[in-house]
Amino acid sequence: MGGLTQENVVEDENYGSNMAETMMRLLPMGLCVVALVIMLKNSQTNDFGSLSYSDLGTFRYLVHANGICAAYSLLSAIVAALPRPTTMPRAWTFFLLDQMLAYIILAAGAASIEVVYLAYKGDTSVTWSETCGSFGGFCRKATASVAITFIVSLCYVGISLLSAYRLFSKYDAPVEHYNNKRGIEIANY
Amino acid sequence: MGGLTQENVVEDENYGSNMAETMMRLLPMGLCVVALVIMLKNSQTNDFGSLSYSDLGTFRYLVHANGICAAYSLLSAIVAALPRPTTMPRAWTFFLLDQMLAYIILAAGAASIEVVYLAYKGDTSVTWSETCGSFGGFCRKATASVAITFIVSLCYVGISLLSAYRLFSKYDAPVEHYNNKRGIEIANY
Repeated sequence: MGGLTQENVVEDENYGSNMAETMMRLLPMGLCVVALVIMLKNSQTNDFGSLSYSDLGTFRYLVHANGICAAYSLLSAIVAALPRPTTMPRAWTFFLLDQMLAYIILAAGAASIEVVYLAYKGDTSVTWSETCGSFGGFCRKATASVAITFIVSLCYVGISLLSAYRLFSKYDAPVEHYNNKRGIEIANY
Repeated sequence: MGGLTQENVVEDENYGSNMAETMMRLLPMGLCVVALVIMLKNSQTNDFGSLSYSDLGTFRYLVHANGICAAYSLLSAIVAALPRPTTMPRAWTFFLLDQMLAYIILAAGAASIEVVYLAYKGDTSVTWSETCGSFGGFCRKATASVAITFIVSLCYVGISLLSAYRLFSKYDAPVEHYNNKRGIEIANY
């Protein structure tokens, strides 16, 4: 196989995986915006009083986390779509930021699900009463927003795996016993 | 350099990094046990009534997460200490379990910090009163346990990076433009 043909094949593969990565990053962007909008519009006023997402610190954090996540997803999707070869600094930046986003959005989701749980069930031992009996609509919207945030977390777990693969496959193996049979091992696995 | 010398060097490096990995896995084990014991012994009885960690679902989850984490850390430290070459299935198992543990322990920490925050501050809009005025000792112990859990999370973020590196450096780079100048690029970075 000539050098030029090899080059073309590699570039085609590169283009395909770039497109897949861009799609993979646009999906959580859309989900983040949906979760953000649901939570931002989440307030309820009735005979018991009024309750808004901004009354709860965790939901404010969730909105911020979703906003950061949407912005980063869009930015990274654009960068991923650019037809440039992946350099080491770029692979490192993607890897570290993707990991950080995965942890940020998971932490926001976990803290929020705790608040939603307390709002539904309450906790008599610490005299926290359940709130969803009075503010059912508020609770349903909050649950929807948190559920979408968990789907975003799953997306970012996947994106982290991808960017870890992209980065570390550029390094040589620390133990080189397998260099000669590497192809066979991967095929077996 | 002869084949035998090369082999010895590689095995010595392997031994050193095995020891480092074992230590890196024993540290969160110790921390998990400490966080677990602090939380398990966390109950307070006074004029206002009594409060135990088991009254709060999140703290029960935290105890379970710390228990799982301690057991896995010990087990993985033992496996990492075994002087066997790293195979692909082993690298995959370590990588996936390490990632899962990182997410489990981070989620437990995030949900618990939310409860600790609510216990200290309360939330008047949903009529949740602050609890730490009456149960100060309980809150301090809970805070200590959650803080240690966050250090464990950081350990597992590091362990995940290590096992991702171990796994993916066994694969070839997806785009092979850099094969010939890889050494230089890494040196520059």
